[in-house]
Amino acid sequence: MEQDDFSEKVGLPPGTVVHTGEDKAEEVVIKVMEFHKGQMREYIADCIEDCKPPDVAGALKWVHVIGVHNVGIVQKVCEYYNVHPLIVEDIPSVGQRPKIEGLSSGVYIVLRAYDMDMESDIITSEQVSIVFGKDFVLSFQQSSAGIFEPIRERARRPKEQMRTNGPDYLTYALLDLIIDRYFVVLEHVGDIIEDLEDDLIEHGTADMLNRIYYIKRSLLTFRRHIWPLREVALKLQRDFSAHVKPSTHIYLRDLYDHIIRVTDLVETYRESITGMLDIYLSSVSNRMNEVMKVLTVVSTIFIPLTLMSSLYGMNWPWFPGTDYGVLGVSIALTVILLGGFRMMKWI
Amino acid sequence: MEQDDFSEKVGLPPGTVVHTGEDKAEEVVIKVMEFHKGQMREYIADCIEDCKPPDVAGALKWVHVIGVHNVGIVQKVCEYYNVHPLIVEDIPSVGQRPKIEGLSSGVYIVLRAYDMDMESDIITSEQVSIVFGKDFVLSFQQSSAGIFEPIRERARRPKEQMRTNGPDYLTYALLDLIIDRYFVVLEHVGDIIEDLEDDLIEHGTADMLNRIYYIKRSLLTFRRHIWPLREVALKLQRDFSAHVKPSTHIYLRDLYDHIIRVTDLVETYRESITGMLDIYLSSVSNRMNEVMKVLTVVSTIFIPLTLMSSLYGMNWPWFPGTDYGVLGVSIALTVILLGGFRMMKWI
Amino acid sequence: MEQDDFSEKVGLPPGTVVHTGEDKAEEVVIKVMEFHKGQMREYIADCIEDCKPPDVAGALKWVHVIGVHNVGIVQKVCEYYNVHPLIVEDIPSVGQRPKIEGLSSGVYIVLRAYDMDMESDIITSEQVSIVFGKDFVLSFQQSSAGIFEPIRERARRPKEQMRTNGPDYLTYALLDLIIDRYFVVLEHVGDIIEDLEDDLIEHGTADMLNRIYYIKRSLLTFRRHIWPLREVALKLQRDFSAHVKPSTHIYLRDLYDHIIRVTDLVETYRESITGMLDIYLSSVSNRMNEVMKVLTVVSTIFIPLTLMSSLYGMNWPWFPGTDYGVLGVSIALTVILLGGFRMMKWI
Amino acid sequence: MEQDDFSEKVGLPPGTVVHTGEDKAEEVVIKVMEFHKGQMREYIADCIEDCKPPDVAGALKWVHVIGVHNVGIVQKVCEYYNVHPLIVEDIPSVGQRPKIEGLSSGVYIVLRAYDMDMESDIITSEQVSIVFGKDFVLSFQQSSAGIFEPIRERARRPKEQMRTNGPDYLTYALLDLIIDRYFVVLEHVGDIIEDLEDDLIEHGTADMLNRIYYIKRSLLTFRRHIWPLREVALKLQRDFSAHVKPSTHIYLRDLYDHIIRVTDLVETYRESITGMLDIYLSSVSNRMNEVMKVLTVVSTIFIPLTLMSSLYGMNWPWFPGTDYGVLGVSIALTVILLGGFRMMKWI
Amino acid sequence: MEQDDFSEKVGLPPGTVVHTGEDKAEEVVIKVMEFHKGQMREYIADCIEDCKPPDVAGALKWVHVIGVHNVGIVQKVCEYYNVHPLIVEDIPSVGQRPKIEGLSSGVYIVLRAYDMDMESDIITSEQVSIVFGKDFVLSFQQSSAGIFEPIRERARRPKEQMRTNGPDYLTYALLDLIIDRYFVVLEHVGDIIEDLEDDLIEHGTADMLNRIYYIKRSLLTFRRHIWPLREVALKLQRDFSAHVKPSTHIYLRDLYDHIIRVTDLVETYRESITGMLDIYLSSVSNRMNEVMKVLTVVSTIFIPLTLMSSLYGMNWPWFPGTDYGVLGVSIALTVILLGGFRMMKWI
Repeated sequence: MEQDDFSEKVGLPPGTVVHTGEDKAEEVVIKVMEFHKGQMREYIADCIEDCKPPDVAGALKWVHVIGVHNVGIVQKVCEYYNVHPLIVEDIPSVGQRPKIEGLSSGVYIVLRAYDMDMESDIITSEQVSIVFGKDFVLSFQQSSAGIFEPIRERARRPKEQMRTNGPDYLTYALLDLIIDRYFVVLEHVGDIIEDLEDDLIEHGTADMLNRIYYIKRSLLTFRRHIWPLREVALKLQRDFSAHVKPSTHIYLRDLYDHIIRVTDLVETYRESITGMLDIYLSSVSNRMNEVMKVLTVVSTIFIPLTLMSSLYGMNWPWFPGTDYGVLGVSIALTVILLGGFRMMKWI
Repeated sequence: MEQDDFSEKVGLPPGTVVHTGEDKAEEVVIKVMEFHKGQMREYIADCIEDCKPPDVAGALKWVHVIGVHNVGIVQKVCEYYNVHPLIVEDIPSVGQRPKIEGLSSGVYIVLRAYDMDMESDIITSEQVSIVFGKDFVLSFQQSSAGIFEPIRERARRPKEQMRTNGPDYLTYALLDLIIDRYFVVLEHVGDIIEDLEDDLIEHGTADMLNRIYYIKRSLLTFRRHIWPLREVALKLQRDFSAHVKPSTHIYLRDLYDHIIRVTDLVETYRESITGMLDIYLSSVSNRMNEVMKVLTVVSTIFIPLTLMSSLYGMNWPWFPGTDYGVLGVSIALTVILLGGFRMMKWI
Repeated sequence: MEQDDFSEKVGLPPGTVVHTGEDKAEEVVIKVMEFHKGQMREYIADCIEDCKPPDVAGALKWVHVIGVHNVGIVQKVCEYYNVHPLIVEDIPSVGQRPKIEGLSSGVYIVLRAYDMDMESDIITSEQVSIVFGKDFVLSFQQSSAGIFEPIRERARRPKEQMRTNGPDYLTYALLDLIIDRYFVVLEHVGDIIEDLEDDLIEHGTADMLNRIYYIKRSLLTFRRHIWPLREVALKLQRDFSAHVKPSTHIYLRDLYDHIIRVTDLVETYRESITGMLDIYLSSVSNRMNEVMKVLTVVSTIFIPLTLMSSLYGMNWPWFPGTDYGVLGVSIALTVILLGGFRMMKWI
Repeated sequence: MEQDDFSEKVGLPPGTVVHTGEDKAEEVVIKVMEFHKGQMREYIADCIEDCKPPDVAGALKWVHVIGVHNVGIVQKVCEYYNVHPLIVEDIPSVGQRPKIEGLSSGVYIVLRAYDMDMESDIITSEQVSIVFGKDFVLSFQQSSAGIFEPIRERARRPKEQMRTNGPDYLTYALLDLIIDRYFVVLEHVGDIIEDLEDDLIEHGTADMLNRIYYIKRSLLTFRRHIWPLREVALKLQRDFSAHVKPSTHIYLRDLYDHIIRVTDLVETYRESITGMLDIYLSSVSNRMNEVMKVLTVVSTIFIPLTLMSSLYGMNWPWFPGTDYGVLGVSIALTVILLGGFRMMKWI
Repeated sequence: MEQDDFSEKVGLPPGTVVHTGEDKAEEVVIKVMEFHKGQMREYIADCIEDCKPPDVAGALKWVHVIGVHNVGIVQKVCEYYNVHPLIVEDIPSVGQRPKIEGLSSGVYIVLRAYDMDMESDIITSEQVSIVFGKDFVLSFQQSSAGIFEPIRERARRPKEQMRTNGPDYLTYALLDLIIDRYFVVLEHVGDIIEDLEDDLIEHGTADMLNRIYYIKRSLLTFRRHIWPLREVALKLQRDFSAHVKPSTHIYLRDLYDHIIRVTDLVETYRESITGMLDIYLSSVSNRMNEVMKVLTVVSTIFIPLTLMSSLYGMNWPWFPGTDYGVLGVSIALTVILLGGFRMMKWI
């Protein structure tokens, strides 16, 4: 479970910045991009001072911090941009619920980026925090996965609108990328579900249950992370007119539409999985029924026959019964029983 | 699952038009109808220029594009009518959630048309996009199925109101036709459910489970496509007074009413199917119970008798017991056991 | 399922009147009642002209059409009272969702009347359409059952307020009668459920499952027909002040209250039935458990004993064992096993 | 089920007063209390005239009618206080949904009072109707149980605020008493559930199912009677300022709070019971699994051994096999099988 | 179950203060802290007079009463601060639903504090009541657990903002501490669920069911106590501007956010547990299926063989059959059966 370790935080005064994920020894990398009048400058921050707000008016600085375990760096970067201490506290505390908060200096968004290892079918996720204001976008990610590489790639192209459209559009682009990846993961989940479906009724093994349960649980956390995003996208359109230009609205509507579609897919898959479990249970019962019928048919035919042969094995030479009569009765008994089972549709 | 292949789209700038369904080699066919002062002209577009807006004022042009895999054609047609790039991106991207969008030049509606092969009970569906404005209706469908043939048929009749009622009425007619087909499909699903019901308790086979599961899943996707249509119909009445004449409102209310009824039917069938599964599980348990009773009765009667006969088969000539006594005890034992089972209502 | 046959209607222009129920050869009967200044005149319409609006001002004419399969008659009657074509289309199309529609000339209400054959426990239902305006009430029913006979009976009494209270009160009386019959049906369903409950845990047979399933399904359709009535009753009070006198409001509130109670009962019964199914499944499992214990106890005691006796039946005269020792070991074994089962509370 | 017998009422004109519970021969008792300037007069009504409104201005008369099967008395009492005929019809018609209605002369409240026989665990309930106006409170109960005795007791104490606080406070006191008894009943239900829980997994008997089902059903009706009370309490605060003094509001808020708590408890218990049923089903399956393992282990070990001994019992003196070899093979076989079962964790 | 013993309270006038938890002989301890101009004074109240409101203007007094079984003390303390009698009644009556109430002199909040014994996995909880006004915070707890010790610890630090931020901030701190402990408890519950998950499909024992059921029930009560807190936090921000400073709002928003997260976690765990139960049931069925197959395979192979050997054991020397033929038929039969089982994938 990805919720953080709260026992360390109980009773601390609000605003105490503690990293609650697992400690990592890896170094924090900060990638910076500056846009100004259609020009772009890209570099890796050598020292923390490289993250300071842009000097020129009208410029846009995107500071992307990879790794939030170094709490000091997070605090320092946020200080440069006047981010409220309570927000600064949230960034390294992984396990946040997706939300959006208005600040005097900008808007704070936290959500979860998902990814999937296509080989092992393991779903991974990490917390991404984005703060954007008049002339800056700060983004923080937990792991070192290159989740924003495609954005960086696009930004490198001259004439790319991202260079001139301001911080709200850049934020949209980041969010859109994360949401699009939800689709990729869900699409793969859909494939797995389809594979399971094919095997469902024929061969239900314990391993299948394991896989069903894994997907069920994944969809559960997935859903916990996608539902609040609806409100995030709505609020972003509605409540932050100071920071979001009207021209960005159509993109945000599109983003909202994508989030709704992800939600829909998650719900559909959840119901699919629940339905599969019911079907699975029914088919196991069904197969058990078949097994029991075989056992019952075999026992019911052979146990009386065994008794009969056993009777004639007793040490009473005078036991009544002609030789061929026994055989006849046995055969008759077998035929009658088989007929009865046939009638009950057991065989 | 009919969602599209998003892995190709992750990270592309918004407005990049990509066809996300399976690639088809079939050629795109464009059927055009022009209405003017009660007259109608119908032709198949030879070149893309045939799709240009009507020249005469007061005319209405309906351009129906069959096949969206040729992205270039879609883009070209949309350009003629000033459709927003984000919308143009949605048309060939199959797997859209039903929705309605207002444009400066008109209204964009996307939904799913359903059909059913009555022989094989296979439900098919495809995405239909409709854009309508002052003097035009554009419609796009994925497959080459003649879903709008009945409309075309009606339009060929002189005095048909479709010729004079404008683009909003034509759009209504297209939507109404699609919704009416939902009823046809659901009606057939209802028949299948009734067939299943008849077999439900008597003969539950694994094949039955398969059929139940198929319907359950179909209703699940069905529902995902019909629910958002409620809002589409509502918004069409409420929010687009610039493009929808008051005289069309009564038809839209009727459309809305039909959508509600489809939704109702889907929900009812879903609950029916869920109920059937419970009943099925219970009846399998029930039948297993019957099987077990037979096995238990047979075993309980014959196993002790076999022991007895076996005892007398031992090589001790002195074993106590008179000949007829054994027979008597055996019979008594059998009678007592049968009586006990009778009492417990097992036989 | 009572939804109508839509395949016949796909693609027809709106307003095309088609009867969608099963065709009936029975003749349509039209019963007319006219009220004027406390007087009442009652007759069976000989020709369609008898259904024309009343000649005298202040009179109220109630035209009750029994049988909607003759589409021509329905159309004719509606024409006399200026009913909108889309409404006229709905009346013979059975399978409508309960709804209320405002017309320029009056109000259109469609709902389902329920009845139950007390002998065979079979629930029947039919669509009833009511249109009322300034000086008329039109009612249409599918079957020839005398559902409105009690109203007719009351109207025959002199001084009955129905004679003077106008069309809205008469409509209320018709609706109230239909809703009251819901209670009668539900009361009987309640009795059936109680009967089932008594048998539930003791003797679960497959037939019981059949009955549970039948009720479950009936409640499902029942619910589909009662839920929308809430809104019908609400709208009748709220939206049609032109056609409903304030003095009728208290009666409509009462009607609404009854509808809520029906809804409540349906929901309660639905949950009851669902609960019964769970209990049923548990009790089948329980009984199977009992059966299995008997089988296991018998097998566990007798199979080893049979082995022992079989060993002594082998053709080795030298097989070690004293005569009474065998008996002792057998008895000891039996006692130990019985003790073990006792401890595990199996016997 | 406590719904009333509607078949008697279908088609009667509204306002026809019919008692729908079981007929009782017991006599109706009417207990009257009059409060005036802190003084209290208490008597049992000899004749119906004793129930007339108080003569003195500023006095408050509480008429408590025990038994509603005598419809004439109910009607008479209500006439004295101008209660609307539709309300008068509701009072003896047991099976009402809890509701509140505004009258010109006062407020009508109907709800259900619950009680529980602590010995037999049987829950009883009856309908209580309360009408209060400027200077009167009328209350009607079905049975002769002394549900309002504690109120009467308190009213006998001098200086009790009930004597001076007016009819709204007295009504609050009556309602509060009824709601408090819900807690008593629920508390006992909670005890029963706890008892069931202790037995749940160890010894699941059919009797247990019976008890679970009884509680489940009780909670279902309970819920049907408590849910609408929320609205009753809300409306009493909000909509009847003419009859409810501001000083009573804080008490009504407290009442509302209690109702919410009852609702919460009912929902929690319902979920508890549902959860218990799942656990029960699982534990039955579990125990069956254990039983089956024993059967399988015993059969798998002894049936092959029996075959072997039977083989040596055949009448072929030349059958290959040394004497001790047979014993060795048998022991080896047994050991191997036991080892296998051990490995599969069956024993 | 933690609801209180209502049978003692039925019929008492409102405002009667009764302690409804179990009686305790322990003495009540009252810890007092006074803040004034950044200074702090801390002492244990010797006599009840020590709890009187602060003498100096601008001071803040926090009276923390440990133990609510001494109703007299609670009443006395509340009298000093003009707390309404209905509120005073609620404080010692444990089993309250979390709620917030506005008073003329302040705000009353009641909620439940949770804790968990990490060794025994037992979840404990107790009712905490907080009343705060212009210059005071009163807090009441049931047990003697030092739940507020961390707050006291922080308050002892000079320059701690709690000393100067007023009663609303102190109340926030108390609430925040309680909510943070919810996370600690839930985190541990999450660990237990993970442990259960590992064992789920492999080894389902009855003990596991017990643990699942315990967690399920705990989450049920947990949820009952956390849901209403959402409204408490919302109302605290919205409705009590007289008592809550704007600067405290951001902290309350943070508190609300935490409550939402707790709610989310509880819901997710609840669904997890429900899913586990389904999986568990399926896996038990699965394993039973395996067991049954073994039994059936063994029986089906050996029972016919035993019959055959038994036949040759009969006392008819002339029984047809060559010696090696029997062996051959036996082996053939076994091979055929094994092949059949193989085909059906049973072995």
